[in-house]
Amino acid sequence: MHEIAVGAGILGQNDAWAQHNREHFRAHGVYVLNLMSAPGAGKTTLLERTVDALASRYRLAVIEGDVQTRIDAERIARHGIQAVQINTGAACHLDARQIHETLPVFDLDALDLLLVENVGNLVCPAEFDLGEHDKVMLLSVAEGDDKPIKYPVMFHAARALLVTKVDLLPYVDFDLGRAERDARALNLELEVFRVSARTGEGLDAWYQWLAARIEGQRTRR
Amino acid sequence: MHEIAVGAGILGQNDAWAQHNREHFRAHGVYVLNLMSAPGAGKTTLLERTVDALASRYRLAVIEGDVQTRIDAERIARHGIQAVQINTGAACHLDARQIHETLPVFDLDALDLLLVENVGNLVCPAEFDLGEHDKVMLLSVAEGDDKPIKYPVMFHAARALLVTKVDLLPYVDFDLGRAERDARALNLELEVFRVSARTGEGLDAWYQWLAARIEGQRTRR
Repeated sequence: MHEIAVGAGILGQNDAWAQHNREHFRAHGVYVLNLMSAPGAGKTTLLERTVDALASRYRLAVIEGDVQTRIDAERIARHGIQAVQINTGAACHLDARQIHETLPVFDLDALDLLLVENVGNLVCPAEFDLGEHDKVMLLSVAEGDDKPIKYPVMFHAARALLVTKVDLLPYVDFDLGRAERDARALNLELEVFRVSARTGEGLDAWYQWLAARIEGQRTRR
Repeated sequence: MHEIAVGAGILGQNDAWAQHNREHFRAHGVYVLNLMSAPGAGKTTLLERTVDALASRYRLAVIEGDVQTRIDAERIARHGIQAVQINTGAACHLDARQIHETLPVFDLDALDLLLVENVGNLVCPAEFDLGEHDKVMLLSVAEGDDKPIKYPVMFHAARALLVTKVDLLPYVDFDLGRAERDARALNLELEVFRVSARTGEGLDAWYQWLAARIEGQRTRR
């Protein structure tokens, strides 16, 4: 049993719960990814494609974060894997304690990959460590190429950026070069993938990157 | 001088500041609109079009809310009207006190319309009354038609909904009927406009609605 100090401040308490989660994930050898984006950038659709692509090679589960409704967990569960919904109520982000309270639902020893879909929001989710191995963020080309400059904390925190809905590029004013340059200026090691869940463009490179991360975690067991 | 009670809770204190703002707006006869949406739904572009369309008939100013950068206020200022930027730092929404601190910058007697662009976020901005007359929200068709169900508080709080980027409808899976039905189920009196700032589609109806709101406020002076 870990003691979480009361009065350490919201972020301090969150970090303590995140550290606790991290120890669980390490002990059970499960690789955990925290997906973040604005509402409607395509997190759930990307998860559906990713589950379909990787479920034959790896044992997966999903935690869905939303203010309310079970819609997204139900979408994921239709793909034949375990999906648990966290409803945050008025809160615009997941926190580490919510993740911790969800963990007993899973048999972590039977998982290679736990995917966490955060609440759709470009600000607060980046501030709350969940104990995950990596944060990944999605930016839809319909949102505009100024987002790295306007929401730098999230781009700085992410290990990988998926520029989504690239099938819409002919119909929107989105300068891929500008967005990627600004994002990499905030985060020199950022991996960038240009994808369309609709056409499948770019998804193989994403699956390969993710598989390499899972394998890397396995070899550290 | 208004006393704002300390210890009333964040939302209680906010409501006191909002009431204070409301008295200012009423005393000076200025109609105030609070624009809310996810990041990248097109708030700033809509404001640019709206300023160009209405500046010859009404005296306008804009308050821009962003986590950081002055990009949006600079975009608006290029259209020849006063635009003030509020940077919220880590906060994912504007609050009434920030608006109050900005008001001395304006000559409210010389304004018919004050447009406030909130931080891009579908959760928290709806919880913070700014003292505005009306909240308006934007939902881009690229975000998906499930947003009214997933983010009901904002749809409930809005007086009008602009479904934006309708020029993208042929290229995305967005059921206009579903989105509007779900939004109206949350808010029976919601006015809905289908617009594209890119093509101009639907903007005249929006300008007419806004002009009627401004005129309504004038007659109450």
